[in-house]
Amino acid sequence: MEREGASLSRRELLRMIGITAGSAAMYQAMDGLGLAAESPYKGPIDLQGAPQGASVLILGAGIAGMTAAYELRNAGYRVQVLEYNARSGGRNWSLRGGDTYTELGGFTQTCEFDKDLYINPGPWRIPYHHQGILSYAKRLRVALEPFFQVNYNAYLHSSSAFGGKPQRYREIKADYQGHVAELLAKATRQNALDAAVSKEDREKLLESLRAWGTLDKNYSYVSSDAGSDRRGYKKDPGGGLTARPVPSQPTGLHDILDSKLWQGIPTGDTYDMQTALFQPVGGMGRIGEAFGRELGALIRYNSKVTRIHQDDRGVTVNYVDTSAPDTALTAKADWCLCTIPLPILAQIPMNVGPAMSSAISAVPYAAAIKVGLQFKRRFWEEDEHIYGGITYTDLPITNIGYPNTGFFSSGKGVLLGAYIWGLNAMEFTAMTPPERVQRVLEYGSQIHPQYTREFDNGVAVAWHRSPFTMGCYGMWSTDARAKHYDDLCAIDGRIALAGEHASFIGGWQEGAVTSSLDAIGRLHRRAVAQGAKA
Amino acid sequence: MEREGASLSRRELLRMIGITAGSAAMYQAMDGLGLAAESPYKGPIDLQGAPQGASVLILGAGIAGMTAAYELRNAGYRVQVLEYNARSGGRNWSLRGGDTYTELGGFTQTCEFDKDLYINPGPWRIPYHHQGILSYAKRLRVALEPFFQVNYNAYLHSSSAFGGKPQRYREIKADYQGHVAELLAKATRQNALDAAVSKEDREKLLESLRAWGTLDKNYSYVSSDAGSDRRGYKKDPGGGLTARPVPSQPTGLHDILDSKLWQGIPTGDTYDMQTALFQPVGGMGRIGEAFGRELGALIRYNSKVTRIHQDDRGVTVNYVDTSAPDTALTAKADWCLCTIPLPILAQIPMNVGPAMSSAISAVPYAAAIKVGLQFKRRFWEEDEHIYGGITYTDLPITNIGYPNTGFFSSGKGVLLGAYIWGLNAMEFTAMTPPERVQRVLEYGSQIHPQYTREFDNGVAVAWHRSPFTMGCYGMWSTDARAKHYDDLCAIDGRIALAGEHASFIGGWQEGAVTSSLDAIGRLHRRAVAQGAKA
Repeated sequence: MEREGASLSRRELLRMIGITAGSAAMYQAMDGLGLAAESPYKGPIDLQGAPQGASVLILGAGIAGMTAAYELRNAGYRVQVLEYNARSGGRNWSLRGGDTYTELGGFTQTCEFDKDLYINPGPWRIPYHHQGILSYAKRLRVALEPFFQVNYNAYLHSSSAFGGKPQRYREIKADYQGHVAELLAKATRQNALDAAVSKEDREKLLESLRAWGTLDKNYSYVSSDAGSDRRGYKKDPGGGLTARPVPSQPTGLHDILDSKLWQGIPTGDTYDMQTALFQPVGGMGRIGEAFGRELGALIRYNSKVTRIHQDDRGVTVNYVDTSAPDTALTAKADWCLCTIPLPILAQIPMNVGPAMSSAISAVPYAAAIKVGLQFKRRFWEEDEHIYGGITYTDLPITNIGYPNTGFFSSGKGVLLGAYIWGLNAMEFTAMTPPERVQRVLEYGSQIHPQYTREFDNGVAVAWHRSPFTMGCYGMWSTDARAKHYDDLCAIDGRIALAGEHASFIGGWQEGAVTSSLDAIGRLHRRAVAQGAKA
Repeated sequence: MEREGASLSRRELLRMIGITAGSAAMYQAMDGLGLAAESPYKGPIDLQGAPQGASVLILGAGIAGMTAAYELRNAGYRVQVLEYNARSGGRNWSLRGGDTYTELGGFTQTCEFDKDLYINPGPWRIPYHHQGILSYAKRLRVALEPFFQVNYNAYLHSSSAFGGKPQRYREIKADYQGHVAELLAKATRQNALDAAVSKEDREKLLESLRAWGTLDKNYSYVSSDAGSDRRGYKKDPGGGLTARPVPSQPTGLHDILDSKLWQGIPTGDTYDMQTALFQPVGGMGRIGEAFGRELGALIRYNSKVTRIHQDDRGVTVNYVDTSAPDTALTAKADWCLCTIPLPILAQIPMNVGPAMSSAISAVPYAAAIKVGLQFKRRFWEEDEHIYGGITYTDLPITNIGYPNTGFFSSGKGVLLGAYIWGLNAMEFTAMTPPERVQRVLEYGSQIHPQYTREFDNGVAVAWHRSPFTMGCYGMWSTDARAKHYDDLCAIDGRIALAGEHASFIGGWQEGAVTSSLDAIGRLHRRAVAQGAKA
């Protein structure tokens, strides 16, 4: 879900491509995945002139489906939504104390978190430029609060570097920047870059490197107050007679390069991870819940689609109620917007042409696991002064996400204990949920030894075992995108598809919103044209 | 107030030093100012064994004075606090609708902000490592919420570059980083740095520069999806059939260097500005107000100190009630903690030795102006998608601070329209408050043209005209610190000083807290020793 999922699964994919095609292909592939970008949402959609009595059947009450239902209903269409789950939201979902969740294979977990504590198994943050989802949150009166992506006091951790000791983000960032500045200043002063930097710019560049990299008067990056004012001090300044600060000693460039911890530096620089980021107060699921309340009886829950059939006059969908699966039910409409995730849709008989059919089968879904851990106290705040943000590690748990709410509160707290991708995700998917939690605790205690004493309970969601998506989000390769993307999005007769998988913002709710608006805009124009003909 | 104030006034000071002493002295001076650093606060102070009946008179109900009053009272001392203002908090202060404020010279402003809107004329943010002030906020049950320092979508603005058009922070940061990476990669590949970078590290460095700087396969920083995924796209990716992104074009290094906008890049890297930062819900003044409620009748308000006298037996303070200034009043105690800002204390007769006396006169105070502007709508959010954080400009207004609360709300909003230092502050100090507001509007409209149409009302606080501080915070030069700091902090007989001016964290509330705790710890030990003797 979202960029880090994107980033790592992208890495896997790139590794596969890289094996046969070398780095040029790899870079092109990277360009093609398009997993992180601003929404082109430009304000409420205009669907004036809906034909009298025209109906749309929407499959899936996730963000894409409910965006469509909301707008089509407002435009005067007759709308019905079929949803497999007993709740609205789809991957927009918060697991709270008392909630139960049954995954494929039948294992049921009951979340035992305290009141007001939750984990978002799916999306957990919204960047400032995702104006589509932000605008629906506002219209649905879902309050938003800041989400810290980068926390300078959280850790970058390599199990094979620095004796396994986690390093503070601020130290690695300050030191990498300092060393880069020192090296570039050296090259500049040796006139090694005379062809690339004009004489006029040379002095300005040096001035900027000194300030940006906290270099000393000889353009060296050494222990200093200026450097410690980035990376932190050995002894911090204070007040009164015991106040004098003592600077800290930078980490050497070799150690930073060797540890690969530099990889964690630019996370907050990427477009989808830049400040300002937000989360709904009370959990991401608040958006899906508010959408569900808004749409009310338009959504039929516990409805499992078994067949989608269109002809000249309309679309017929067969489904069953999951509580009475032997009784075949039918819904009909003039048009159908299908937001069912592709791994599931690929298994449902649907009479669309070969182009859309091939496209549906062309997109593998990311495996991802999220594990929520409740602890008896917020030790990351109390002991380590980490308030929100994320620790990155090369252990299979990948992320430790600190809660961006309830700061400084006493009592229990819930961490995102793991956000796992790739091969590790496969391994974790094969475990039972309690085994996953146990393994995550073992890994996490390498970073936070308090885990052992403070653990209370946990839940684990493996997206490949999710019965309503069978995966986390669609992963488009450059090739697949070139061959199949337009076919996936083009209306086939009376059926259009939407969801994050039908977007260039894969794995983000904004992809769901913008693909939905694009699809219903086209469906609407077709309906209007047909209405005029009729 | 805080780091930016510190930073710019430091720059002024450095400029003065630099004129005569060159850059070596300048760097040493920079080291000596110590304006940004972690607190050495290590948990609640232990003041066991207070002598029976011992009393302490505290001058000033700001953060330093109230920290002392709270701890000394809890330890069993008899405590009285004299405060010049009619409220607690000192520079910890929020101006809200209906509040009035009279500055030196008699000009009274009435704040006309809407309900729940405010401006913090003094401190406005608390970094995660300021554990002293954070701990008092928690003990006083003041809720804290995140403060965005850096906003990638806010602006860096130079009135003489890019045709005066503000640049998005993300663009300048991504491009500077990209160009630096490209140049260093070039030097590395030309073997210009062989003496500085080992053969083993060379490839690792290149790999890191490519990822960190979004370089292409030839190690060039060019227009690309990877680069646009930092600086933003020309056309943003979306969903459906109109979704393909178009990359943007980087700004050239020459233009960035020439504009000096690179200066704004590392603001969020400095220790006091790193995530996580917080602000009290409802305004910084909530801390001072909560302290005041907690101390209740221990604080005597409207009390202007006119003389401080000590002898072998105790301390006698003369003061007047500001509503009846002709009646001399007297307070006595065994000990005195004086937190009166130095520009005012320097004018009050006090019989301390020449060492403390000289120290009191050795510290100039920063001039600073803050201007709060209420607008009819939050156009920075609605039109420009700037949610919190700060825009930096070379115009005299220096900062535009966007509110870090009430995100996405409809209706009016209050900006920090200016945070002015140095020579510009002098000029603005000389104006009437309405003139200041008018000038700030004129400058600000160069960045936000909406100012003209949307302006509602404003307030302006010039700290050099503040009757209770006559300045914003103490500015220690390296020389003054070496000569006078210990003398300022050392107890003189029965009198100790405290406040941000008696700390290495000048301009920050943490300096006030830690200097206060350091001072009362020493006063307590002296009181215990004397109590034992008596």
